[in-house]
Amino acid sequence: MALIVQKYGGSSVADAESIKRVAKRIVDTRRAGHDVVVAVSAMGDTTDELLDLANEVAPIPAPRELDMLLSSGERISMALLAMAIHSMGFEARSFTGSQAGMITDSQHGAARIVDVTPVRLREALDEGAIVIVAGFQGFNRDTRDITTLGRGGSDTTAVALAAALDADVCEIYSDVDGIFTADPRVIPKAQKLDHIGSEEMLELAANGAKVLYIRAVEYARRHGVLIHARSTFSSSEGTYVLGEGMKNPREAEGAAAMEEPIVAGVATDFGQAKITVAGVPDVPGKAAEIFKIVARSGANVDMIVQNVSATGRTDISFTVPKADSAAALKALAGEQTEVGFQNLVHDDQIGKLSVVGAGMRTHSGVSAVLFEALSAGGINIEMISTSEIRISVVLRDTDLAEAARTVHTAYGLDGDAEATVHAGTGR
Amino acid sequence: MALIVQKYGGSSVADAESIKRVAKRIVDTRRAGHDVVVAVSAMGDTTDELLDLANEVAPIPAPRELDMLLSSGERISMALLAMAIHSMGFEARSFTGSQAGMITDSQHGAARIVDVTPVRLREALDEGAIVIVAGFQGFNRDTRDITTLGRGGSDTTAVALAAALDADVCEIYSDVDGIFTADPRVIPKAQKLDHIGSEEMLELAANGAKVLYIRAVEYARRHGVLIHARSTFSSSEGTYVLGEGMKNPREAEGAAAMEEPIVAGVATDFGQAKITVAGVPDVPGKAAEIFKIVARSGANVDMIVQNVSATGRTDISFTVPKADSAAALKALAGEQTEVGFQNLVHDDQIGKLSVVGAGMRTHSGVSAVLFEALSAGGINIEMISTSEIRISVVLRDTDLAEAARTVHTAYGLDGDAEATVHAGTGR
Repeated sequence: MALIVQKYGGSSVADAESIKRVAKRIVDTRRAGHDVVVAVSAMGDTTDELLDLANEVAPIPAPRELDMLLSSGERISMALLAMAIHSMGFEARSFTGSQAGMITDSQHGAARIVDVTPVRLREALDEGAIVIVAGFQGFNRDTRDITTLGRGGSDTTAVALAAALDADVCEIYSDVDGIFTADPRVIPKAQKLDHIGSEEMLELAANGAKVLYIRAVEYARRHGVLIHARSTFSSSEGTYVLGEGMKNPREAEGAAAMEEPIVAGVATDFGQAKITVAGVPDVPGKAAEIFKIVARSGANVDMIVQNVSATGRTDISFTVPKADSAAALKALAGEQTEVGFQNLVHDDQIGKLSVVGAGMRTHSGVSAVLFEALSAGGINIEMISTSEIRISVVLRDTDLAEAARTVHTAYGLDGDAEATVHAGTGR
Repeated sequence: MALIVQKYGGSSVADAESIKRVAKRIVDTRRAGHDVVVAVSAMGDTTDELLDLANEVAPIPAPRELDMLLSSGERISMALLAMAIHSMGFEARSFTGSQAGMITDSQHGAARIVDVTPVRLREALDEGAIVIVAGFQGFNRDTRDITTLGRGGSDTTAVALAAALDADVCEIYSDVDGIFTADPRVIPKAQKLDHIGSEEMLELAANGAKVLYIRAVEYARRHGVLIHARSTFSSSEGTYVLGEGMKNPREAEGAAAMEEPIVAGVATDFGQAKITVAGVPDVPGKAAEIFKIVARSGANVDMIVQNVSATGRTDISFTVPKADSAAALKALAGEQTEVGFQNLVHDDQIGKLSVVGAGMRTHSGVSAVLFEALSAGGINIEMISTSEIRISVVLRDTDLAEAARTVHTAYGLDGDAEATVHAGTGR
């Protein structure tokens, strides 16, 4: 008998039928003899609808009240889910973030978890109940106000509960079957991974893979929580995300331990734009000046390339999420005279390709395979950046899909069959 | 500077526009120098929509979870209202039932208030904030679970807050202008009352007047809360509901004190059905036997008439809300042999007319006016019942409107102009 935490996203509980399907899945887990704690998101588009309402009554909604408003979404889904389970003859109890002891700081809309005190959850489990917890929300002890955790909050709720309750596994359900060697919508031959290291998972998530949220993976790694990413629409196992020193549960069950592949996956990201600050005086401190301005605009810089110049002036290029680029451009344009650059170039027709693998630490020649494959395909590279376990290149966005397929093949990641792709966002 | 509690029902906050209108009204009260505490219902049909969802996922929703679900409705409206006020430049804070200290027993769906500990509301008021409280909901201290107060719960929330905070007045806003001498939809010449005694209000509410809920009026009477029933859609004053020994605030302002009218109003009720248990053995204890059966069926008996008979058998007729009559009939039919009656007659084509007035205690001849008016109009009376301050008669439902107009005129209640009737339910 294990303690299993499960997380279901908004698309898994979008309507009454979906809620009943999820309820059955939870009951099946209980029937198999396990204790179950569920973190659930708001139904379908509830959060967006509530946000629309908020914007109708107030141009800039007060953050405390916005959290009070948004937190009602999970209250609805969790109560319905508990009812559905109850009507199947199983005891189920729903708990809000504050009832579940999800203590956060007071940063409304993006609160950080500071403590988890699941006293009531333990009581309910001891009494044999299935526990349903509102994802995405918490409670600040000082202000006694409701908070929300921001994007990906329900994943984080699930992982934090798993850590606090010392659960055996945290199952994150979505509409995809697990973590793939690449996005199956881009590369049909992508294969589902049996498992992946949490560092690799973080790099993939940070570079375009959307199945798990970085924040939840980080929390899991820090607290030694085993994540199992799997599909709401299938009973087959998904992908285990293994922290340092963690055993793959399937090996423990007697499956043959395979040698780890050098490259875990290929990530594609169409969401970045490139900004070039051209004709910057080539004197010390100019790069710092530029990136201070960009940071103040709220834009999140990803890759940076600086061309050395012989003319006394240089070009600095960087990428930011497309949504941030207008703010960054405006901020830079406002300080053109102070910085002394000649002009700004904005390019949102780019795509980023990343190859991630913990094996890069110990194997040489990994980057050579990438560059050879792209060269053989006649694909031009515009920017390059690397980390210890990742190589990323920026390409024309029209080249990205073809480049990803070529590189996926070059690293021997192609599967025999085409992966099944479900509709939806995996949120 | 006064402390004013205001209650806005679902139709007053049905959409973003309505919420902004209500916000402006609250801000105007604050601008006039008063402290304001608001109890708000869920938006428009939210509660019904949530109930529908509950019934889709579970035929008999678990009561604890149903309360958790339904309580999210007021969370949405109160947060939106607080945001709207905030964006007008005023500090506003919303509080759930439990945050507001609305302590109830553990009867889910129909919880009774056992204590009100508005510590956080007082803090917020002291800090100059407008306080918004979720109507309809509370919190049980032993189970630490969310409860709801049942029908008319938001009125009760408002009155309970007014009592606990020692407010100067509790303003109950709806889509009608106040309490009328009769339902203006039935009697166009009905007049708005300047004030009414709480006992009279209770009799009117119990006999078909829908503006205020009995439970809230009872609570106000017990705790000395002054209710002011008025319209969301007009700035004119409504009707004050005065408890024992309470002064009419308008008299205090110098208005001439009028002699109290003998009859306060005429109530009409189309919602009752009549059941006749015919051929009951005329032996002691039979009536008790019958009404025990009816009570067990959950039906709420209103009027009872028993015809004395010379044949050893008697007929017992009583009225129940139409919604209860099927259950009562079924229960009685199931025990026909035990009780020994001959047959059951069901009649839902009846209407009840009630005349209410505290003056009946000290004035004779009040009932004579009623009977003469009905007789002159050729209207047949089927049942009669009286209390200290009320006379009710059951008539054919097709006669009820005409009878009410005739009686309204006979008691001198007709106004000069026709009352303005707004659409909606006043809930």
